[in-house]
Amino acid sequence: MRAVVRRNKQLVCTDIDDLTPGPGQVLARTLCCGICGSDLHALHSLEHMLELGRRSGGGGVGGGLDPSADIVFGHEFCAEILDHGPGSARTLKAGTRVVTMPVMISAEGFESIGYSNRFPGGYAERMLLAEQMLLEVPNGLSSVQAAMTEPFAVGEHAVAASVLGDGSGAAAAPLVIGCGPVGLAVIAALKTRGVGPIVAADFSPARRALAEVMGADEVIDPAQQSPYENWSARGVPTTFAERAMAQMTGQGKRAVIFECVGVPGLLQKVIEGAPGGSQIIVAGVCMATDSIEPSLCINKQLDFRFVLGYSPQEFSDTLRNIADGRIDVLPAITDTVGLEGVAGAFAALADPERQCKIVVDPSL
Amino acid sequence: MRAVVRRNKQLVCTDIDDLTPGPGQVLARTLCCGICGSDLHALHSLEHMLELGRRSGGGGVGGGLDPSADIVFGHEFCAEILDHGPGSARTLKAGTRVVTMPVMISAEGFESIGYSNRFPGGYAERMLLAEQMLLEVPNGLSSVQAAMTEPFAVGEHAVAASVLGDGSGAAAAPLVIGCGPVGLAVIAALKTRGVGPIVAADFSPARRALAEVMGADEVIDPAQQSPYENWSARGVPTTFAERAMAQMTGQGKRAVIFECVGVPGLLQKVIEGAPGGSQIIVAGVCMATDSIEPSLCINKQLDFRFVLGYSPQEFSDTLRNIADGRIDVLPAITDTVGLEGVAGAFAALADPERQCKIVVDPSL
Repeated sequence: MRAVVRRNKQLVCTDIDDLTPGPGQVLARTLCCGICGSDLHALHSLEHMLELGRRSGGGGVGGGLDPSADIVFGHEFCAEILDHGPGSARTLKAGTRVVTMPVMISAEGFESIGYSNRFPGGYAERMLLAEQMLLEVPNGLSSVQAAMTEPFAVGEHAVAASVLGDGSGAAAAPLVIGCGPVGLAVIAALKTRGVGPIVAADFSPARRALAEVMGADEVIDPAQQSPYENWSARGVPTTFAERAMAQMTGQGKRAVIFECVGVPGLLQKVIEGAPGGSQIIVAGVCMATDSIEPSLCINKQLDFRFVLGYSPQEFSDTLRNIADGRIDVLPAITDTVGLEGVAGAFAALADPERQCKIVVDPSL
Repeated sequence: MRAVVRRNKQLVCTDIDDLTPGPGQVLARTLCCGICGSDLHALHSLEHMLELGRRSGGGGVGGGLDPSADIVFGHEFCAEILDHGPGSARTLKAGTRVVTMPVMISAEGFESIGYSNRFPGGYAERMLLAEQMLLEVPNGLSSVQAAMTEPFAVGEHAVAASVLGDGSGAAAAPLVIGCGPVGLAVIAALKTRGVGPIVAADFSPARRALAEVMGADEVIDPAQQSPYENWSARGVPTTFAERAMAQMTGQGKRAVIFECVGVPGLLQKVIEGAPGGSQIIVAGVCMATDSIEPSLCINKQLDFRFVLGYSPQEFSDTLRNIADGRIDVLPAITDTVGLEGVAGAFAALADPERQCKIVVDPSL
């Protein structure tokens, strides 16, 4: 079958071996698959990502992955069941469109589909999926929309980890830093909860426009205005005396800042700009060592939650939110390419003005 | 009256003006006052602390404080009411022994007693206190024990900020890094909740012995053994697969790590050593810029809470815990000095083997 293979830190469009579903697996035809920023990073820096994963006790990208061997990326997909492996429950028949968390469960444990030498991801015509993980795409939802379950589940998880998670969002003032796919997913998840006003910041006019479409009530260009000003107008006390008064009166909102960029220096900017008592959800993945001033965090009594991925419940909730129209993912999709276009799409995604989420359709 | 004054970054034992209580204030005789690590730092680095406080929106040490003018430190005190200012409620009569959060409330706002040019702290024979903040020392509790309410409230606040705060500690495995006054207070607060086993680490044999007296069930010398090993023996899953299994079965404890040291590099050590899903309570004040690897925090989905001070409720709860014998503060007190001995005590506190908490008694 045709696939885009990571080989010697290049993306090569080539033929690879056909797949045969084993016990508990289905063979599926890839209908479409989003390109994730993690894939862009992994193309050149997979070894570093794997080292960080090892040092994290297996969190992050890929246990057992050999970066010198072929890998087919792609973990944001919608697929159609073609065939079932031996001993399958066959609850979902051939022809059913499905999405799934990109995880293969086997006797040896978990393996990441799309960050594996054995289980190709969605930049291939076909995939092997774990039957017990499959979710049927609800009637009428397009495959492209369904494929966005995965990246938007990341936003759902980030919001669920915040104090806004339980729906008691009236006392919080959300600020989203960075309106790439992660930031947009956070905005969408905030919007499903009716939380607001949602303030979002990005240097790119195109990304700010997307943020508004996704549900941001106010967008900020950090080149023109600091996103960390105007807390008072958002109802957040900023000085020690204001906070003490707010505590006594039960008034005042808590700032909840979603860091969705992940570049060195940004965490310190958030620390400097956060009002005392803020909660900071760190969803942007900064791969480099970074510098912070812990004493500012202490004086402000900041609360940081570093988040990754999503739970099975958050994944299926996100599919439901998309299917029921509470999240419109389509504006985030800026292009569709065939397998031959994947390498070019990786390059194009460097420009936030032109591209946000590019979807691969292996049938093109 | 006699006082120890910070003047030109030196401690000078000298006479200062007598005090007259204003409206809402009482004049009190200092019975004893603990020496806090913050005072040691402020002696030489007060300007830096004030700058950090300003950049924190007034959190931390002292708004309106002029570091070039005289300051009398001391915010961990027990005192006896001598006289009331005009318009006082006089609920507590002259002769009553009291403790209080070291805060003066006035029409101009809050001011820190002991970090103020106007309100001398407990390294003086007398102080002005805010009448409405006073707590009577319960019958029979010694003044030295009562003075320890303030530093031990810091531990109560740190534990209250953790997932152990609500008493549901069975699912958590606490580790205390550093057994100075802050770490010991954390251990004591954990002990009052019946949480355990409590593991504590310090390079100093004397501090480890104190940790055991305070309630640590296991002490570790980091020179001999990493405190971040043996998580499995403490019931904490360490690998991604173990965590996934623990989530499915509802088994497994969450590591809660109290960082009570505050030196550069330690936060990164905690990040490297923490199992995935850990909560890290940062109570040690690191004044320098520090380096961390955010991607490890992301992969492990770490949760950080930076804590400072305590609430009025935590302060009074701590006094009650000491008075009722749930916290024995006396082992932490390693020396008592008069005002003439304060400068020497500051120097002596550099050696954790010899000293932990030194109490100043101005009558000596």
